This record gives sequence, C-alpha cells and structure tokens, in this order.
Amino acid sequence: MIKKILPILNWLPDYTRQTLSGDIVAGITVAIMIIPQSMAYALLAGLSPEIGLYASIVPMMLYALFGSSRYLAVGPVALVSLMTASVMGEVTATGSADYHTGALIIALLSGVLLIIMSLARLGVLATLLSKPILSGFTSAAAIIIGLSQLKYFLGMTIPSGLNSFEKLYYAASHWQESNLLALFLGIASIFIILSSGGVLKRFLTRLNLSTIFVNVMSKLGPLFAVAIFTIASWYFGWHDAFNLRIVGDIPSGLPSFGMPALEQDLVWELLGPAILIALVGTIESISVAKSLASKEREKIEPNKELFGLGMANLGASFTGAYPITGGLSRSIVNYSAGAQTPFASIFTGLLVLIVVLFLTPLFYYLPLAVLSSIVIIAVTKLFDMKGFFDLWRYNKGDAISMLVTFFVVLFMGVELGILVGVVLSVLFFLIRTSQPHVAVLGRVGNKGHFRNILRYDAQTSSNLLALRIDESLFFVNSSYIENLISDKVAGHPDIEHLVLVCSGINFIDSSALETLEHLSEALQEAGITVHLAEVKGPVMDKLSQTPFIRKLQGQVFLSTEEAFTTLESK
Amino acid sequence: MIKKILPILNWLPDYTRQTLSGDIVAGITVAIMIIPQSMAYALLAGLSPEIGLYASIVPMMLYALFGSSRYLAVGPVALVSLMTASVMGEVTATGSADYHTGALIIALLSGVLLIIMSLARLGVLATLLSKPILSGFTSAAAIIIGLSQLKYFLGMTIPSGLNSFEKLYYAASHWQESNLLALFLGIASIFIILSSGGVLKRFLTRLNLSTIFVNVMSKLGPLFAVAIFTIASWYFGWHDAFNLRIVGDIPSGLPSFGMPALEQDLVWELLGPAILIALVGTIESISVAKSLASKEREKIEPNKELFGLGMANLGASFTGAYPITGGLSRSIVNYSAGAQTPFASIFTGLLVLIVVLFLTPLFYYLPLAVLSSIVIIAVTKLFDMKGFFDLWRYNKGDAISMLVTFFVVLFMGVELGILVGVVLSVLFFLIRTSQPHVAVLGRVGNKGHFRNILRYDAQTSSNLLALRIDESLFFVNSSYIENLISDKVAGHPDIEHLVLVCSGINFIDSSALETLEHLSEALQEAGITVHLAEVKGPVMDKLSQTPFIRKLQGQVFLSTEEAFTTLESK
Repeated sequence: MIKKILPILNWLPDYTRQTLSGDIVAGITVAIMIIPQSMAYALLAGLSPEIGLYASIVPMMLYALFGSSRYLAVGPVALVSLMTASVMGEVTATGSADYHTGALIIALLSGVLLIIMSLARLGVLATLLSKPILSGFTSAAAIIIGLSQLKYFLGMTIPSGLNSFEKLYYAASHWQESNLLALFLGIASIFIILSSGGVLKRFLTRLNLSTIFVNVMSKLGPLFAVAIFTIASWYFGWHDAFNLRIVGDIPSGLPSFGMPALEQDLVWELLGPAILIALVGTIESISVAKSLASKEREKIEPNKELFGLGMANLGASFTGAYPITGGLSRSIVNYSAGAQTPFASIFTGLLVLIVVLFLTPLFYYLPLAVLSSIVIIAVTKLFDMKGFFDLWRYNKGDAISMLVTFFVVLFMGVELGILVGVVLSVLFFLIRTSQPHVAVLGRVGNKGHFRNILRYDAQTSSNLLALRIDESLFFVNSSYIENLISDKVAGHPDIEHLVLVCSGINFIDSSALETLEHLSEALQEAGITVHLAEVKGPVMDKLSQTPFIRKLQGQVFLSTEEAFTTLESK
Repeated sequence: MIKKILPILNWLPDYTRQTLSGDIVAGITVAIMIIPQSMAYALLAGLSPEIGLYASIVPMMLYALFGSSRYLAVGPVALVSLMTASVMGEVTATGSADYHTGALIIALLSGVLLIIMSLARLGVLATLLSKPILSGFTSAAAIIIGLSQLKYFLGMTIPSGLNSFEKLYYAASHWQESNLLALFLGIASIFIILSSGGVLKRFLTRLNLSTIFVNVMSKLGPLFAVAIFTIASWYFGWHDAFNLRIVGDIPSGLPSFGMPALEQDLVWELLGPAILIALVGTIESISVAKSLASKEREKIEPNKELFGLGMANLGASFTGAYPITGGLSRSIVNYSAGAQTPFASIFTGLLVLIVVLFLTPLFYYLPLAVLSSIVIIAVTKLFDMKGFFDLWRYNKGDAISMLVTFFVVLFMGVELGILVGVVLSVLFFLIRTSQPHVAVLGRVGNKGHFRNILRYDAQTSSNLLALRIDESLFFVNSSYIENLISDKVAGHPDIEHLVLVCSGINFIDSSALETLEHLSEALQEAGITVHLAEVKGPVMDKLSQTPFIRKLQGQVFLSTEEAFTTLESK
C-alpha cells in the first residue's frame, strides 16, 4: 500500500554504490545544465531569474519521491512559462508582487487539481488535447516565445503590452535602437549551443570517448556560452562600456517558505487557466516520461504521474517558485548521463540549493542576450507544423483543428486557442459520428461471409434487407439513422424482414434506444419485422432489460449468416 | 429547382374545392384557439398581448410558403416565450421599449442562423441536444413558467427580479394580498379547459358526432373560458368592483413593419441566446412535424424545416412580433380539424389579422387570470421527469445529465442549464468512449465464429492473441488502448502474432494512427507481429494511404477465421 504512494520504496532497498555513482554524475550534469536554463525560463515567464532556480529545488525533489518515472526531471519548462506569462499578463502588470503571487496561486491550483485528478483517476481528461491540437499550440507557442526574447536578443526596450507581431514590427521599425553587442552575443551563443550538439559532438565521437560523456557534453552548450560570456562580460566591463543588459543582483539565500496569499477573486480568475496549464504540463511530462520508459521497457502509470506532478507543483507554490512540469531536454540529459533512480533528481535539487545559497553572485555579469538565445534554441524544437499536409490528406478535421489552434493561439491568446482547438476537435468528432456509414450486406461465397454489396460481389435476398450500421447509436446520430433506415426500407418495397447488423455498434444511448423503439413499431405497422444480428455482449446486456427488446417482434441472431438462413427460407 | 425552395408549388396545382373546404375549417378553428393562447404566451414572454397576435400572422404565412410540413402551425410557444423572457430579463428591464427591440433582434438572429444552418446543411447541430437534456430542460421550464403565472393567477403584485422560488415564497408569505376573484376565475378556467378535454369529449362522443368535430371541440376549452369570463367580467364590471386585472386596451391596426434597430453591443450580447432559442425551437418544431407526418406517411426534411422556420422568424422580426416556432397543440388542432395543405395556416393568419385590425376591443375585459390558466394547463404537459428512473437503470450518464440540466435550469438560468447539459452529455460520451471494451477472441464451434472468451466457451491459440476493440480509435482513447494492448501482450508472453479485430472500429483519427504506428513498431522489436482483421471498407480506404500500413509487417485479413487459419498453422 505505502509502496503505491511512495514509489521510492521500490528502488531504495536495492540501492548500491554503483547506482549511487550513476545518480551523482547525472545529478551534477543536470544541475549544470538547468541553472542557466531555469533562469532563462523564469525571465520568459516574466519573473526574476532566482525564481527559476527555486523551481528547480523542492519541486524536483518532491517529484523524485512521488512520481513514477525513474528518469524524469521536473522544473521550469518553456510552454508552462509562456502560459504563466500569458495568463498573468492579462490579470496584472508584469513584475509586480501580485504577478508572482498569481504564479504561485496557479502552481497551487494546478497541484491541487492534479492530485484530485489522480485520486479520481481522471488522467483521461488530459487526452482531450489531441495531437493535432498540441502541435498547433506548441508551434504557435514557439513563435510567441521566440518573439518574446527579441528585447533581450536585440538589447532594446520593447514596450510591454504588445502582442507578438506588434513586438516584431516595433523591433523592425526601431532597429537602430538595438544593441549590437547584445545581438553579437546572442548569435554567438546560438552558434556555441548548436555546434556543441553538432561539430563538437562529432569531434568527441571521433576521439573515441565514451558515448555517455559525448552525449552529456553535447547538451552542455548553454553552460559553455554562459561561462564564456559571463567571464568576458565581467572582464571587459561590457555593462558599463556598452550598456549591455546583464542579470545583475540575484538575492541569495533560501526562498521564503509558506502558502501564497489567496485572494478569493484572484483564485477564481486563475482557476480556468490553472486547469489548462496543469493539463498541458502533464501531457508534455507524460510524453517525455513514456518515451524514456519505453527505452528501458518500464511502465509509466498516468495517475501516479499526475500525483507526482501535483505534489511537485504544490512544492513550487510553497517555496516561492512557479508552475513546473517534466522537461524534455533535462530529462534526456538525466537519462543519458546515467541516472539510475530518482535520487539523481534529489541530488540535482541539492546542488541548485547550494547555488542559490552561495553562488548567485557568479551570475551578476551574465548577459541577458545569452539567456535569450538558450530559450530561442529550446523552442525551435517545439515548432512542428510539418505534419500538416499529411494530416490534411488523412483527416481534414484534424488538420483544420491544428491550423485553427495555431492561428488562434498566435493572434488571440494561448488559453482561447487551446479551448477553441478542443471544442473544434470534439465538434469534428461529433459531426463525423453524426452521419455514420451504413452498408447493405449480401452473402459473399458460401463460407458465411457477409459484406457491403457496393464493395463486393455479394448476393442479397429478395425478402430481407440486412443493414450494417458502422457507428454507436447515440443522440448525435439517432435521427440521421432513423431517416436513413426509412429511406433504405422505402427503396426495397418487397422486404418482410429488416436485419440490423450491430457489429459496429458499441453502445446505444437512451435517445437512440427511444428512436429504435419508434422505428421498430412503425416498421411493424408497415408489415416489416425488425431483427438484430451480431449484437455485442455489453450492448446486449444493456438492451435485454429494456422495453425495446421485450416489444421486438423479430429475433436476435448470433451471426448475420444465422439471420439469412433462418429468414430466407421462411 | 424552384419547387425545392417553395414547397407550395408541390400542392398548389392539385388544389381542389374539397381541399379548400378542409383548409378553411381548420384555419378558422386554429384561429379561434390561438388568439387567446398567443396573447397569453406574449404575457409570459414579458410583452404586451397584441405582440403575441402579430406573431401569429406573417410568421405563420411565411412558414406555410417555405416549410416542409403540411400541418405544422407556427407561432408563439411556451418554451420559446420563456427563453425570450429569461434572456431579456437579464439584458434589460421588463416591458421597456428596448425589451421588445431585444426580442425582435433575437427573432432576426434566429432567423438568419436557421437559414444559414439550412443552407450549410447543419441541421445536425440541433441533435446536440439529446433527449435527456431536453426532458430536464422542459421539466424545469414547466415549473418556471407555472410559477411565472402566479401573479396573474393570484391577482397579486409580485416584485420583478425574483427567481422562481422567491416568487413562490413571496406569494405564500403575502397570501392575504391575493385577489380571490382572480383565483376563482383561474381555477374555474382550468376546470373548463380540463373538462372540455375530458367530460365534454366523452359526452360529445356518446352523441355520435363526427370524430373531427369532437376532437376540435375538446381543444377549444381555452376559448370557452375566455368567452364566458370576458362577458361576465364586462357585464358585472369586475375590474372596478373587485380590482380584477384585465387585458385592457390593445392597440388595433397593423403592426409596424421594418427591420428592428440594431445596436451592435446588443446584437453581440444576444447572439448566444439566439442560437439556443433557435435550436430549442427547431427541435420542438421538428418533433411535432415528424409526429404528424408519420401519421400520413409523409417525410419531414430537417434542412427545409430550418429554412421555413428561419423565414418565419425573419418575418416575426420585421412585423413587430417576437421569436416563434412550430407549436404542438395548435398543430394538432390544425391536423384534427382537417387541414389538407399549408393554405390552412395562411387562412389562420388572415383571420388573426382581421382580429388585430378590428376586434381587439373584444378583449378589453378579458381577465388576466384566465390567460394565466391557459398557460398553466399548457405547461403541465411539458413536465416529463417520469422517465428518470428508467434512464438511471439504462444509462447513468444520461440520467445525471438530465437531473443536472433540470436543476441548473431551475436555479441558475435557462441558457446556462442547457449549456451545462450539452457539455455534460458530450463529456459523458467521451468518458465512455475513452475506456472501450476490448475482448480476447477465441474460436466457437467449427463454423468460423469467433467470440469473447469470457462469454463463450471459445478456443484460443497458443501463438496468437486476437483482440477485438469495440470502439473507434481516436484521441480520447488512443493512449488507453495502447496501455491495454501492452498489458494484454505482457500477459501472453508466448505469442508471436497479435491480431487486432477491427469490426467495431468505424474510424481511426490521426492521434490514434500515430499510437498504432508506435505500438506496432514496439511490438515488432519485441518479436510480435501485428495483423489486422475485419477492417471496414471506409477505414481501410483511409489506412491504405498511410505509412502505418506500409510499415506494417503483418497482414490484413478479411475475417478473423482467415487470420486464425493462416497464423495458427505457421
């Protein structure tokens, strides 16, 4: 029982010195990687850099205790940071104390929601965001995030309150205000980060170094850029000489601990956004955890993941951080660097804590342009519209949902975009099921196969009509089906029997049941008996208790063949 | 082509003197019936009585020209009147000029929407209101409408702005203010209306009068009550003597013709409610039209109905009326009284026009308590919660949706209630499809039947596992299915082949396709080949163009038997 709540008890008993060494190497590597990243994402969220660091301490450790993935590293991520910025930007002015309180409340609400969803086993709600919606959303988010970094990247002041394209326009029309040094540092950082994943990686591989070492080094580009340009910025005094924007003072010491101040109005206002942020964060996190688990043939339990992420978000809200979730790059580094157990994350958290306590002055001279290039590189991977044309060919509804989500997120806001996407995908689904495929069946060969007469050379019978309805029957399609069956029957005036082949019917709701009852009575009056065939077990269980079956004059056949042999001979 | 738009051209050429006489009798009867009814419903909508009369002139005639039902009589109905009152009550103060403008804008918007829906063939949207939602809504509406008549029925002044239960409480705690004469007239009117449907009907039947005559007379109770008590009210001077509330002056003459004044803000505010009113009105109307058409084996075409109702609502908005739809009782009277063609409705409209032009003074002394009793009798038929327990046994989700809709409509408002109901019913549907039934199949007998091994004594094979998935695959269930298949495969470590029996799969969306692709690759790596069987034509058409099928190592079998014979022997 207690093992179910604390997965740590599954691996702690088998913990060995070798496991420990793997975890420590991974822990150090991840810490080095996420320190600049966390600060950059905090800036993206509109918060000061140290808050990003706080978000990589306690939340990370809590997930290690309660989560179900061995390798997932949680903390600030780009999508959730953007969503936080977007929500709080609407609610209040950036950077104020209220702004951070709002972020804490979102983390608190997300945490509570995730824990409730986990206990109620409602992980399924996260599936309401289909892949096309997520692609559309993340692609638009990539553009929004990229443009949000313009002011740091170009070292210019862009007025707040502009939307993405106003920002782009402002930057283009005020290009002479940009700081060339910032621009150079940004481009140079991008160059360093990309080459450590490319040229450096190939070079190290050729030196026959261990794969783990090569993989880890290739992910540390951000750290190299930060180290090189922080030292240069300090040594050459760029801030004073060229008015270069740097991180500046980061308060050292522990984050303040405690529950955020809950204003009732603010809580209500943030509840909807918190639900969305929790869902998007969870989907991102579970997909990362799944892909790592499949490499090791382990299993991710969605409801446990919800619980772990819920606890981590609660931890974030109680330690002055902001909403977090499992991150892709940090988890891959954690796994590649040889993490064996969640202890690696606990170790990472301790290292970040040491940095927060003693080492923040090291970042004083770090140019913001370098941090912005880390964000820009990270989000280019989020842009994923390439599948659009495949999608268009396979399923127009999915393709339209993706495109609409993309544009609404881009031009009208993150929450509205996701909401519109979800509503659209559900609506397309309902529209599709509202006009189901119905086939007239005939006998193919003499082996008891019955197929659509339009696709196969199939023999029908003069006195009976067999219709296979390829959809569950429910309120959305019940009147369509009623009209369609009436039409088909009208087109076969000589029949005495109508056999509804139910192999494609997985469910009949009460609206459809009423329709079936009326239809069967009306056909009976017209001298046509209604029969059922191939009714599935669970559907028959339900039907057998209803007046519809009691009043049904026809029979319920196990197979279409049985129906044909019995009724044809009559 | 023109016949498609103007169904009148279908029946006009065959028009005979006999058809005419039927239509004239029906036209007169309906006019007599709807004159008091229309005034009562207008009061219910918070409008003056003459507006109800206007709503029974032009809209009725326009529907006759454009609608597809021969017998449907359109005009003011209780549900739509209540919804209009509810919306406008929120938007503005009852009875003001703006209030009526708002009602006209709702009619205009409803009309435009219905015509657009008709042209776009979106009649299916109306099916989003499932039967449980409609029952819950109409039952709550019956209570709200009934309580809204208290002030007339008791002849007391109840402050506006109270909700239904505050009205009830106010009436109960101020019972001594009620007008005993009003109460007596209300009860007496109910008695007259009920007995003309009961005692009078039985009496006339025993006299061997024609069924049509008996049926028509039994529906004219409201007219008898109005005639008797209007004359009595005039003769005894009840208004002055007992302070009895009467209809008073009704402006005679033509309604003002023209487009309502469109304030942009008001239009936006009323758009949502107008959609709901249009949908609810359409569903009510189509269900009435269908039940009458089925008696004569005629066909109702939903998209034509939308067009006819749309034109009628446009007509309502241009002639100073308010939103209308097809009504149950007036249509039944029209049909019973022998209407042969929509000309009956044109005749009714002309008669109401004459009343509006010359006869409104006749209604001066009509007591409002009598009108309120007409409304109260009409709405008792709307209360329909009796099916709740059947529903609960058959489908808990439907039952819960019904109950929630009922209570939200009752306590929190009509639009919110319907919206919550729709969202709930879609959500329950998605939750149900999110965890589909999956059966392991085995061979039953030697005739090529394959059934669920848990329900039948079926033989499985040691090297293959056949799973039948009883649901379409889409974003809501794709990860559930993935987990479930992995579990089933893990439980059968010896198998070499996995056969997915797709007889219950009517559709595979792009999210599910991606999942299938991953799953098939993962199983292939684990040495298990994935095959498909009984894939439906439309699904296969889509699949055949995808990388999933190109990469699939296994085969696609026509039947489960083919899969077993081919794979078992290997």
